[in-house]
Amino acid sequence: MTIKLIGFPYSGPTMKVIITLRELGLPYEFETPANFGVLKTEDFLANKNPFGKIPVLFDGDFRIIESRSICRYLASKYQGKNNNTILIPNDVHKAGLVDQFISYEASYYDPPVFKLVSQEVFAEKFWNKSPDPEIIKQGREELIKVLDIYEKLLEGKEYLNGEYSLADIYHSPYTHYVYGVAKHSELWDSRPNVKNWWNRLRNREAVKKTFKEIP
Amino acid sequence: MTIKLIGFPYSGPTMKVIITLRELGLPYEFETPANFGVLKTEDFLANKNPFGKIPVLFDGDFRIIESRSICRYLASKYQGKNNNTILIPNDVHKAGLVDQFISYEASYYDPPVFKLVSQEVFAEKFWNKSPDPEIIKQGREELIKVLDIYEKLLEGKEYLNGEYSLADIYHSPYTHYVYGVAKHSELWDSRPNVKNWWNRLRNREAVKKTFKEIP
Repeated sequence: MTIKLIGFPYSGPTMKVIITLRELGLPYEFETPANFGVLKTEDFLANKNPFGKIPVLFDGDFRIIESRSICRYLASKYQGKNNNTILIPNDVHKAGLVDQFISYEASYYDPPVFKLVSQEVFAEKFWNKSPDPEIIKQGREELIKVLDIYEKLLEGKEYLNGEYSLADIYHSPYTHYVYGVAKHSELWDSRPNVKNWWNRLRNREAVKKTFKEIP
Repeated sequence: MTIKLIGFPYSGPTMKVIITLRELGLPYEFETPANFGVLKTEDFLANKNPFGKIPVLFDGDFRIIESRSICRYLASKYQGKNNNTILIPNDVHKAGLVDQFISYEASYYDPPVFKLVSQEVFAEKFWNKSPDPEIIKQGREELIKVLDIYEKLLEGKEYLNGEYSLADIYHSPYTHYVYGVAKHSELWDSRPNVKNWWNRLRNREAVKKTFKEIP
Protein backbone atom coordinates (compact mmCIF):
# COMPACT_ATOMS: atom_id res chain seq x y z
CA MET A 1 0.00 0.00 0.00
CA THR A 2 1.31 3.42 -0.91
CA ILE A 3 1.56 6.02 1.84
CA LYS A 4 1.01 9.55 0.58
CA LEU A 5 1.60 12.63 2.73
CA ILE A 6 0.33 16.10 1.87
CA GLY A 7 2.03 18.97 3.68
CA PHE A 8 4.59 21.77 3.67
CA PRO A 9 8.22 20.90 4.52
CA TYR A 10 8.63 23.91 6.85
CA SER A 11 5.45 23.09 8.84
CA GLY A 12 6.08 21.73 12.34
CA PRO A 13 3.14 19.27 12.20
CA THR A 14 4.25 18.03 8.75
CA MET A 15 7.80 17.56 10.05
CA LYS A 16 6.48 15.45 12.95
CA VAL A 17 4.89 13.06 10.45
CA ILE A 18 7.94 12.95 8.17
CA ILE A 19 10.25 12.15 11.11
CA THR A 20 7.84 9.41 12.25
CA LEU A 21 7.70 7.88 8.76
CA ARG A 22 11.50 7.89 8.54
CA GLU A 23 12.03 6.51 12.05
CA LEU A 24 9.72 3.62 11.17
CA GLY A 25 11.48 3.03 7.85
CA LEU A 26 8.31 3.65 5.83
CA PRO A 27 8.59 4.80 2.20
CA TYR A 28 6.09 7.52 1.26
CA GLU A 29 5.18 9.97 -1.47
CA PHE A 30 5.21 13.64 -0.50
CA GLU A 31 2.92 16.20 -2.08
CA THR A 32 3.14 19.93 -1.39
CA PRO A 33 0.11 22.09 -2.24
CA ALA A 34 0.93 24.95 -4.64
CA ASN A 35 -0.09 27.55 -2.05
CA PHE A 36 -2.20 28.11 1.10
CA GLY A 37 -5.26 28.88 -1.05
CA VAL A 38 -5.47 25.25 -2.17
CA LEU A 39 -6.34 24.23 1.42
CA LYS A 40 -9.55 26.26 1.28
CA THR A 41 -10.82 24.93 -2.06
CA GLU A 42 -14.04 22.91 -2.20
CA ASP A 43 -12.14 19.80 -3.33
CA PHE A 44 -9.61 19.98 -0.51
CA LEU A 45 -12.28 20.58 2.14
CA ALA A 46 -14.48 17.74 0.82
CA ASN A 47 -11.81 15.13 0.07
CA LYS A 48 -8.72 15.98 2.09
CA ASN A 49 -9.44 17.90 5.31
CA PRO A 50 -12.74 19.56 6.31
CA PHE A 51 -10.81 22.05 8.48
CA GLY A 52 -8.62 23.14 5.55
CA LYS A 53 -5.27 22.21 7.12
CA ILE A 54 -2.23 20.06 6.49
CA PRO A 55 -0.83 17.45 7.04
CA VAL A 56 -3.12 14.85 5.44
CA LEU A 57 -2.01 11.23 5.14
CA PHE A 58 -3.39 8.53 2.86
CA ASP A 59 -2.41 4.96 3.65
CA GLY A 60 -3.89 3.31 0.57
CA ASP A 61 -7.58 4.25 0.81
CA PHE A 62 -7.43 5.12 4.50
CA ARG A 63 -7.27 8.85 5.12
CA ILE A 64 -6.21 10.42 8.42
CA ILE A 65 -5.56 14.05 9.40
CA GLU A 66 -4.07 15.90 12.40
CA SER A 67 -0.36 15.27 12.93
CA ARG A 68 -0.75 13.68 16.37
CA SER A 69 -3.31 11.14 15.25
CA ILE A 70 -1.32 10.44 12.07
CA CYS A 71 1.92 9.75 13.99
CA ARG A 72 0.18 7.56 16.57
CA TYR A 73 -1.60 5.63 13.81
CA LEU A 74 1.68 5.03 11.97
CA ALA A 75 3.42 3.82 15.13
CA SER A 76 0.49 1.58 16.16
CA LYS A 77 0.25 -0.01 12.75
CA TYR A 78 3.85 -0.21 11.56
CA GLN A 79 6.34 -0.05 14.43
CA GLY A 80 8.64 -3.04 14.62
CA LYS A 81 7.79 -4.09 11.03
CA ASN A 82 10.51 -2.51 8.84
CA ASN A 83 13.05 -1.96 11.63
CA ASN A 84 13.33 -2.22 15.41
CA THR A 85 12.24 1.33 16.28
CA ILE A 86 9.45 1.37 18.86
CA LEU A 87 7.79 4.79 19.31
CA ILE A 88 4.93 3.74 21.63
CA PRO A 89 6.03 1.16 24.23
CA ASN A 90 3.95 -2.01 24.49
CA ASP A 91 3.95 -1.83 28.30
CA VAL A 92 0.85 0.08 29.43
CA HIS A 93 2.68 2.01 32.17
CA LYS A 94 5.57 3.05 29.94
CA ALA A 95 3.10 4.03 27.22
CA GLY A 96 1.19 6.12 29.77
CA LEU A 97 4.35 8.01 30.65
CA VAL A 98 5.14 8.61 26.97
CA ASP A 99 1.64 10.09 26.67
CA GLN A 100 2.39 12.21 29.70
CA PHE A 101 5.41 13.73 27.90
CA ILE A 102 3.30 14.17 24.77
CA SER A 103 0.90 16.16 26.90
CA TYR A 104 3.72 18.22 28.48
CA GLU A 105 4.72 19.23 24.98
CA ALA A 106 1.21 20.41 24.09
CA SER A 107 0.45 22.00 27.47
CA TYR A 108 3.74 23.55 28.61
CA TYR A 109 6.54 23.30 26.06
CA ASP A 110 4.86 24.19 22.79
CA PRO A 111 3.03 27.39 23.86
CA PRO A 112 6.16 29.40 24.85
CA VAL A 113 8.30 27.86 22.10
CA PHE A 114 5.63 28.75 19.55
CA LYS A 115 5.64 32.35 20.80
CA LEU A 116 9.30 32.56 19.77
CA VAL A 117 8.82 30.66 16.51
CA SER A 118 5.77 32.67 15.51
CA GLN A 119 7.50 36.00 16.09
CA GLU A 120 11.03 35.23 14.96
CA VAL A 121 10.44 32.74 12.14
CA PHE A 122 6.87 32.92 10.87
CA ALA A 123 5.85 36.57 11.42
CA GLU A 124 7.98 38.02 8.63
CA LYS A 125 8.12 34.92 6.44
CA PHE A 126 4.39 34.22 6.22
CA TRP A 127 2.36 36.96 7.87
CA ASN A 128 4.21 40.07 6.71
CA LYS A 129 4.46 41.33 10.30
CA SER A 130 7.30 42.57 12.49
CA PRO A 131 8.24 40.43 15.51
CA ASP A 132 6.56 41.59 18.75
CA PRO A 133 9.29 41.98 21.43
CA GLU A 134 6.72 41.64 24.25
CA ILE A 135 5.57 38.20 23.02
CA ILE A 136 9.22 37.13 22.64
CA LYS A 137 9.97 38.26 26.21
CA GLN A 138 6.93 36.37 27.57
CA GLY A 139 7.86 33.26 25.58
CA ARG A 140 11.42 33.25 26.97
CA GLU A 141 10.25 33.74 30.56
CA GLU A 142 7.71 30.91 30.33
CA LEU A 143 10.16 28.64 28.55
CA ILE A 144 12.85 29.10 31.21
CA LYS A 145 10.48 27.75 33.89
CA VAL A 146 9.54 24.77 31.72
CA LEU A 147 13.15 23.95 30.84
CA ASP A 148 14.10 24.05 34.53
CA ILE A 149 11.52 21.31 35.12
CA TYR A 150 12.69 19.37 32.05
CA GLU A 151 16.26 19.54 33.36
CA LYS A 152 15.13 17.58 36.44
CA LEU A 153 12.89 15.21 34.49
CA LEU A 154 15.74 14.35 32.10
CA GLU A 155 18.20 13.45 34.91
CA GLY A 156 19.91 10.18 33.99
CA LYS A 157 17.84 9.70 30.84
CA GLU A 158 18.83 9.57 27.17
CA TYR A 159 15.39 10.62 25.97
CA LEU A 160 12.31 12.06 27.67
CA ASN A 161 10.89 8.74 28.75
CA GLY A 162 14.21 6.91 28.89
CA GLU A 163 13.90 5.31 25.47
CA TYR A 164 13.27 7.30 22.28
CA SER A 165 9.55 7.74 21.63
CA LEU A 166 6.85 9.72 19.87
CA ALA A 167 7.18 12.32 22.66
CA ASP A 168 10.72 13.22 21.55
CA ILE A 169 9.61 13.51 17.93
CA TYR A 170 6.84 15.96 18.89
CA HIS A 171 9.36 18.24 20.62
CA SER A 172 11.74 18.36 17.64
CA PRO A 173 10.46 20.71 14.91
CA TYR A 174 9.84 23.90 16.89
CA THR A 175 12.91 23.32 19.08
CA HIS A 176 14.92 23.21 15.87
CA TYR A 177 13.50 26.59 14.80
CA VAL A 178 14.05 28.24 18.17
CA TYR A 179 17.47 26.69 18.71
CA GLY A 180 18.85 27.39 15.30
CA VAL A 181 16.97 29.92 13.26
CA ALA A 182 15.70 32.04 16.13
CA LYS A 183 18.94 31.93 18.15
CA HIS A 184 17.89 31.04 21.68
CA SER A 185 20.24 28.09 21.84
CA GLU A 186 21.67 29.08 25.24
CA LEU A 187 18.32 28.21 26.89
CA TRP A 188 18.98 24.56 26.03
CA ASP A 189 22.79 24.59 26.21
CA SER A 190 22.97 26.02 29.73
CA ARG A 191 21.08 23.01 31.15
CA PRO A 192 23.30 19.89 30.81
CA ASN A 193 20.53 17.27 30.71
CA VAL A 194 18.42 19.31 28.32
CA LYS A 195 21.48 20.03 26.17
CA ASN A 196 22.45 16.35 25.92
CA TRP A 197 18.86 15.36 25.14
CA TRP A 198 18.55 17.90 22.37
CA ASN A 199 21.92 17.00 20.86
CA ARG A 200 21.01 13.32 20.87
CA LEU A 201 17.67 14.14 19.29
CA ARG A 202 18.77 16.47 16.54
CA ASN A 203 21.54 14.11 15.48
CA ARG A 204 19.23 11.19 14.78
CA GLU A 205 19.31 10.45 11.04
CA ALA A 206 15.54 10.83 10.54
CA VAL A 207 15.48 14.15 12.38
CA LYS A 208 18.62 15.61 10.78
CA LYS A 209 17.48 14.73 7.28
CA THR A 210 14.08 16.33 7.88
CA PHE A 211 15.55 19.61 9.14
CA LYS A 212 17.92 19.73 6.15
CA GLU A 213 14.96 19.79 3.80
CA ILE A 214 13.37 22.94 5.24
CA PRO A 215 13.45 25.45 2.38
CA MET B 1 -4.92 -1.82 43.69
CA THR B 2 -6.52 1.39 44.85
CA ILE B 3 -7.01 4.15 42.32
CA LYS B 4 -6.76 7.63 43.82
CA LEU B 5 -7.63 10.78 41.90
CA ILE B 6 -6.66 14.28 43.03
CA GLY B 7 -8.63 17.10 41.42
CA PHE B 8 -11.42 19.67 41.64
CA PRO B 9 -14.96 18.55 40.70
CA TYR B 10 -15.62 21.68 38.59
CA SER B 11 -12.41 21.30 36.57
CA GLY B 12 -12.92 20.15 32.97
CA PRO B 13 -9.77 17.95 32.94
CA THR B 14 -10.75 16.36 36.29
CA MET B 15 -14.27 15.67 34.94
CA LYS B 16 -12.76 13.91 31.91
CA VAL B 17 -10.97 11.49 34.22
CA ILE B 18 -13.99 10.94 36.49
CA ILE B 19 -16.22 10.15 33.49
CA THR B 20 -13.58 7.73 32.16
CA LEU B 21 -13.32 5.97 35.54
CA ARG B 22 -17.10 5.63 35.73
CA GLU B 23 -17.51 4.48 32.14
CA LEU B 24 -14.96 1.74 32.80
CA GLY B 25 -16.66 0.75 36.07
CA LEU B 26 -13.55 1.51 38.13
CA PRO B 27 -13.91 2.34 41.82
CA TYR B 28 -11.66 5.19 42.99
CA GLU B 29 -10.95 7.52 45.89
CA PHE B 30 -11.31 11.23 45.19
CA GLU B 31 -9.23 13.86 46.96
CA THR B 32 -9.80 17.59 46.56
CA PRO B 33 -6.97 19.96 47.55
CA ALA B 34 -8.04 22.55 50.15
CA ASN B 35 -7.24 25.41 47.74
CA PHE B 36 -5.20 26.38 44.66
CA GLY B 37 -2.22 27.26 46.88
CA VAL B 38 -1.69 23.59 47.73
CA LEU B 39 -0.74 22.91 44.09
CA LYS B 40 2.28 25.19 44.38
CA THR B 41 3.68 23.74 47.62
CA GLU B 42 7.05 22.02 47.63
CA ASP B 43 5.44 18.69 48.53
CA PHE B 44 2.89 18.84 45.71
CA LEU B 45 5.51 19.87 43.12
CA ALA B 46 7.93 17.16 44.24
CA ASN B 47 5.52 14.26 44.80
CA LYS B 48 2.35 14.98 42.83
CA ASN B 49 2.89 17.17 39.76
CA PRO B 50 6.03 19.19 38.89
CA PHE B 51 3.89 21.64 36.91
CA GLY B 52 1.61 22.31 39.90
CA LYS B 53 -1.65 21.22 38.24
CA ILE B 54 -4.47 18.78 38.71
CA PRO B 55 -5.65 16.10 37.98
CA VAL B 56 -3.13 13.61 39.39
CA LEU B 57 -3.90 9.90 39.41
CA PHE B 58 -2.30 7.16 41.49
CA ASP B 59 -2.96 3.58 40.44
CA GLY B 60 -1.33 1.85 43.39
CA ASP B 61 2.25 3.13 43.25
CA PHE B 62 2.01 4.24 39.61
CA ARG B 63 1.53 8.00 39.27
CA ILE B 64 0.33 9.69 36.10
CA ILE B 65 -0.65 13.31 35.38
CA GLU B 66 -2.30 15.25 32.52
CA SER B 67 -5.94 14.33 31.93
CA ARG B 68 -5.42 13.04 28.38
CA SER B 69 -2.63 10.66 29.34
CA ILE B 70 -4.56 9.56 32.45
CA CYS B 71 -7.72 8.71 30.47
CA ARG B 72 -5.81 6.89 27.75
CA TYR B 73 -3.86 4.93 30.35
CA LEU B 74 -7.06 3.90 32.15
CA ALA B 75 -8.71 2.79 28.90
CA SER B 76 -5.60 0.90 27.71
CA LYS B 77 -5.20 -0.91 31.01
CA TYR B 78 -8.77 -1.52 32.16
CA GLN B 79 -11.27 -1.37 29.30
CA GLY B 80 -13.29 -4.53 28.88
CA LYS B 81 -12.35 -5.75 32.38
CA ASN B 82 -15.19 -4.58 34.66
CA ASN B 83 -17.78 -4.05 31.92
CA ASN B 84 -18.05 -4.07 28.12
CA THR B 85 -17.29 -0.39 27.54
CA ILE B 86 -14.51 0.09 24.97
CA LEU B 87 -13.16 3.66 24.77
CA ILE B 88 -10.23 3.05 22.40
CA PRO B 89 -11.10 0.57 19.62
CA ASN B 90 -8.76 -2.39 19.12
CA ASP B 91 -8.79 -1.91 15.34
CA VAL B 92 -5.88 0.33 14.37
CA HIS B 93 -7.87 2.29 11.76
CA LYS B 94 -10.83 2.90 14.06
CA ALA B 95 -8.44 3.89 16.86
CA GLY B 96 -6.74 6.32 14.47
CA LEU B 97 -10.05 8.00 13.73
CA VAL B 98 -10.87 8.25 17.44
CA ASP B 99 -7.52 10.01 17.86
CA GLN B 100 -8.46 12.26 14.98
CA PHE B 101 -11.59 13.39 16.87
CA ILE B 102 -9.52 13.78 20.05
CA SER B 103 -7.31 16.12 18.07
CA TYR B 104 -10.31 18.02 16.63
CA GLU B 105 -11.38 18.69 20.20
CA ALA B 106 -7.99 20.11 21.17
CA SER B 107 -7.38 22.00 17.91
CA TYR B 108 -10.79 23.34 16.88
CA TYR B 109 -13.56 22.66 19.40
CA ASP B 110 -11.94 23.44 22.73
CA PRO B 111 -10.41 26.86 21.92
CA PRO B 112 -13.71 28.65 21.06
CA VAL B 113 -15.70 26.74 23.69
CA PHE B 114 -13.10 27.68 26.30
CA LYS B 115 -13.43 31.34 25.31
CA LEU B 116 -17.09 31.15 26.35
CA VAL B 117 -16.44 29.07 29.47
CA SER B 118 -13.57 31.27 30.62
CA GLN B 119 -15.59 34.46 30.28
CA GLU B 120 -19.03 33.28 31.34
CA VAL B 121 -18.21 30.66 33.97
CA PHE B 122 -14.67 31.07 35.26
CA ALA B 123 -13.97 34.84 34.99
CA GLU B 124 -16.22 35.88 37.86
CA LYS B 125 -16.06 32.62 39.82
CA PHE B 126 -12.28 32.23 39.99
CA TRP B 127 -10.53 35.27 38.55
CA ASN B 128 -12.64 38.09 39.94
CA LYS B 129 -13.00 39.59 36.44
CA SER B 130 -15.96 40.75 34.35
CA PRO B 131 -16.71 38.76 31.17
CA ASP B 132 -15.16 40.30 28.05
CA PRO B 133 -17.92 40.64 25.39
CA GLU B 134 -15.35 40.76 22.57
CA ILE B 135 -13.89 37.34 23.54
CA ILE B 136 -17.44 35.93 23.83
CA LYS B 137 -18.30 37.25 20.35
CA GLN B 138 -15.12 35.74 18.86
CA GLY B 139 -15.76 32.43 20.60
CA ARG B 140 -19.29 32.19 19.20
CA GLU B 141 -18.19 33.05 15.67
CA GLU B 142 -15.41 30.46 15.70
CA LEU B 143 -17.64 27.84 17.30
CA ILE B 144 -20.37 28.24 14.67
CA LYS B 145 -17.90 27.32 11.91
CA VAL B 146 -16.68 24.29 13.86
CA LEU B 147 -20.22 23.08 14.67
CA ASP B 148 -21.18 23.37 10.99
CA ILE B 149 -18.37 20.91 10.21
CA TYR B 150 -19.36 18.65 13.13
CA GLU B 151 -22.95 18.60 11.82
CA LYS B 152 -21.65 16.97 8.60
CA LEU B 153 -19.20 14.67 10.40
CA LEU B 154 -21.97 13.38 12.70
CA GLU B 155 -24.33 12.49 9.83
CA GLY B 156 -25.76 9.04 10.49
CA LYS B 157 -23.64 8.49 13.62
CA GLU B 158 -24.59 8.02 17.26
CA TYR B 159 -21.25 9.28 18.54
CA LEU B 160 -18.31 11.10 16.97
CA ASN B 161 -16.61 8.01 15.65
CA GLY B 162 -19.76 5.90 15.37
CA GLU B 163 -19.31 4.09 18.67
CA TYR B 164 -18.85 5.88 21.99
CA SER B 165 -15.16 6.61 22.67
CA LEU B 166 -12.65 8.68 24.59
CA ALA B 167 -13.22 11.44 22.00
CA ASP B 168 -16.82 11.93 23.16
CA ILE B 169 -15.71 12.06 26.80
CA TYR B 170 -13.19 14.81 26.03
CA HIS B 171 -15.90 16.98 24.46
CA SER B 172 -18.27 16.67 27.42
CA PRO B 173 -17.18 18.93 30.31
CA TYR B 174 -16.87 22.28 28.58
CA THR B 175 -19.87 21.62 26.35
CA HIS B 176 -21.86 21.09 29.54
CA TYR B 177 -20.74 24.48 30.85
CA VAL B 178 -21.43 26.33 27.61
CA TYR B 179 -24.70 24.53 26.93
CA GLY B 180 -26.13 24.89 30.40
CA VAL B 181 -24.46 27.42 32.60
CA ALA B 182 -23.39 29.83 29.91
CA LYS B 183 -26.62 29.54 27.89
CA HIS B 184 -25.52 29.04 24.31
CA SER B 185 -27.62 25.90 23.91
CA GLU B 186 -29.12 27.02 20.57
CA LEU B 187 -25.72 26.56 18.90
CA TRP B 188 -26.07 22.82 19.49
CA ASP B 189 -29.86 22.54 19.29
CA SER B 190 -30.16 24.20 15.87
CA ARG B 191 -28.04 21.47 14.25
CA PRO B 192 -29.96 18.16 14.36
CA ASN B 193 -26.98 15.77 14.27
CA VAL B 194 -25.06 17.81 16.82
CA LYS B 195 -28.16 18.09 19.00
CA ASN B 196 -28.79 14.34 18.99
CA TRP B 197 -25.15 13.62 19.69
CA TRP B 198 -25.03 15.98 22.65
CA ASN B 199 -28.31 14.67 24.08
CA ARG B 200 -27.07 11.09 23.80
CA LEU B 201 -23.81 12.07 25.45
CA ARG B 202 -25.11 14.10 28.36
CA ASN B 203 -27.66 11.43 29.22
CA ARG B 204 -25.11 8.69 29.72
CA GLU B 205 -25.11 7.69 33.39
CA ALA B 206 -21.39 8.35 33.94
CA VAL B 207 -21.62 11.78 32.34
CA LYS B 208 -24.88 12.84 34.02
CA LYS B 209 -23.65 11.80 37.45
CA THR B 210 -20.40 13.75 37.00
CA PHE B 211 -22.16 16.96 35.97
CA LYS B 212 -24.53 16.68 38.95
CA GLU B 213 -21.58 16.81 41.31
CA ILE B 214 -20.26 20.19 40.11
CA PRO B 215 -20.55 22.47 43.16
